[in-house]
Amino acid sequence: MGHHNSQLDAIGQVTVVGTGLLGGSIGLGLKKAGFAGRIVGVGRRQSTVRRAGERGCIDAGYTTLVEAVAEARESAQGTVHLLVLATPLSTFDAIFDELNRMDLAGTIITDVGSTKQQVCQSAAQRLGEPHRFVGSHPMAGSEQHGPDYARADLFVGCPCILTPEAHTSREAQDTVEAVWRALGMRLVHMTPQEHDRQVALISHLPHAVASLLVSLAQRGESLRIASSGFRDTTRVASGDPRVWADIFSANRRAVSEAIDALYRELGDFKQQLEHNDHAGMLEALSRNKAARDQWLAAADGHDDESGE
Amino acid sequence: MGHHNSQLDAIGQVTVVGTGLLGGSIGLGLKKAGFAGRIVGVGRRQSTVRRAGERGCIDAGYTTLVEAVAEARESAQGTVHLLVLATPLSTFDAIFDELNRMDLAGTIITDVGSTKQQVCQSAAQRLGEPHRFVGSHPMAGSEQHGPDYARADLFVGCPCILTPEAHTSREAQDTVEAVWRALGMRLVHMTPQEHDRQVALISHLPHAVASLLVSLAQRGESLRIASSGFRDTTRVASGDPRVWADIFSANRRAVSEAIDALYRELGDFKQQLEHNDHAGMLEALSRNKAARDQWLAAADGHDDESGE
Repeated sequence: MGHHNSQLDAIGQVTVVGTGLLGGSIGLGLKKAGFAGRIVGVGRRQSTVRRAGERGCIDAGYTTLVEAVAEARESAQGTVHLLVLATPLSTFDAIFDELNRMDLAGTIITDVGSTKQQVCQSAAQRLGEPHRFVGSHPMAGSEQHGPDYARADLFVGCPCILTPEAHTSREAQDTVEAVWRALGMRLVHMTPQEHDRQVALISHLPHAVASLLVSLAQRGESLRIASSGFRDTTRVASGDPRVWADIFSANRRAVSEAIDALYRELGDFKQQLEHNDHAGMLEALSRNKAARDQWLAAADGHDDESGE
Repeated sequence: MGHHNSQLDAIGQVTVVGTGLLGGSIGLGLKKAGFAGRIVGVGRRQSTVRRAGERGCIDAGYTTLVEAVAEARESAQGTVHLLVLATPLSTFDAIFDELNRMDLAGTIITDVGSTKQQVCQSAAQRLGEPHRFVGSHPMAGSEQHGPDYARADLFVGCPCILTPEAHTSREAQDTVEAVWRALGMRLVHMTPQEHDRQVALISHLPHAVASLLVSLAQRGESLRIASSGFRDTTRVASGDPRVWADIFSANRRAVSEAIDALYRELGDFKQQLEHNDHAGMLEALSRNKAARDQWLAAADGHDDESGE
């Protein structure tokens, strides 16, 4: 991929906390990008960590954070240690507390969490040195989970949102950006608030709706006639419920506002149905198709760029 | 595929009215299944008909229905002529009227329309011999259209709904069933009313919601951070707006009721968000994931069967 730069070379160890789909793919992707440092995985379950090792996602694995941080301190003298939280959101508070009891000299911290206000607030409150943290949200993944599904190219061409704040150090931001760039991502910067509002619209609300559509179809006993359209529309509803309950809980205000906005859209559409307003429906469907096709064309353009 | 049977062998000519994705795929699929009869295409535009011929979807093509029916009468003496309407719903009334002015001896008629009450009513009212008609809805397709996207295996493993009525002849039903079975479809029977209610839940409402989610994301200026999840959830929103405006118009009552049902689901979910009811959300997400995973496993089982 040839994204080498001095900022990436300065990293001696990347620790992924959580060796599932995202953590595992970070490891595979960095190796494919020629990352010369060490990749260490931390997982609660020995079996998942071992599987990540077998798949080549990590060079070494531990079941406690303290072991991984100790390894970074011993073997990576003078280099940067990047620690990436890739576990469900509900685990973050405890991880920040645990990190805060350690010597974090040389350590930069980021995360892959799907909400940012609560995460960034928690980091700012719990870490004695919050300048070491910058929030990330790589917009990649699938409904699958576990290291078996990890892929070196999972992040290629996808957007990655960063939410640096006034107290974030330049080094933290540069280090984290170097890693996402090496993985082929397109960086977008915004505040944690703006992130949560936008992600509610393009990820959290669509996820909720996909799940509710399955519920409606199931109760209406119509799943047996569902086909490829329904399969794609509801794909995300097969995602890990624990991960998603955490996300909805953390971003409940923005998701609730997105539901209100959808109510209004549904209300307008229902009016068109009730008036049998064929022209109005045709106009709305055409406008939304054009918006989607335009977005897809732009996204494909980004994919091409990332392949350079 | 080896679905040969005497009912299929009795068909001398299949005429697809509309040589787009569906009409073209019927032609390709029947040829692959070893259908020995003639496949004739009718399209409004000469260029589409020619393209369907170049792709091998049809043996002969015309731009008027009367030519295709005349060919069936001349060259297919004593055999059955199956005519499949694969054009947008808004064209059906005029086609039934036109057919009714012709000699339909030996002809069986079906359609691939996405709604059935209005279609079956129109056939019953406009055809002097409504026993020749049976409504079909093959649950296959994609957001693409035109003969360039036609595929021999488009229908394999997918459900096909048939809505025979009291006046439908046994021959009409058997002929149409033989063709869908030869294309690898799994047959499901129900009334036109029940069809429209169920399809509103698993196709029309999901389509409307996909389009509205694009609208929301576009107005919220958040499309630039949308990724693979959003791409799949909204795929159908790139479908042909003319086709879908017709569908919504024809099935407006059932779609409106499905919207009301979605309102209730969204309302329950919003309550859970506002009470930060993590356990309740986890339970609902888990239940819907299980329903979807179970449906997918069953659908994959059907795919395997069709490969026999």
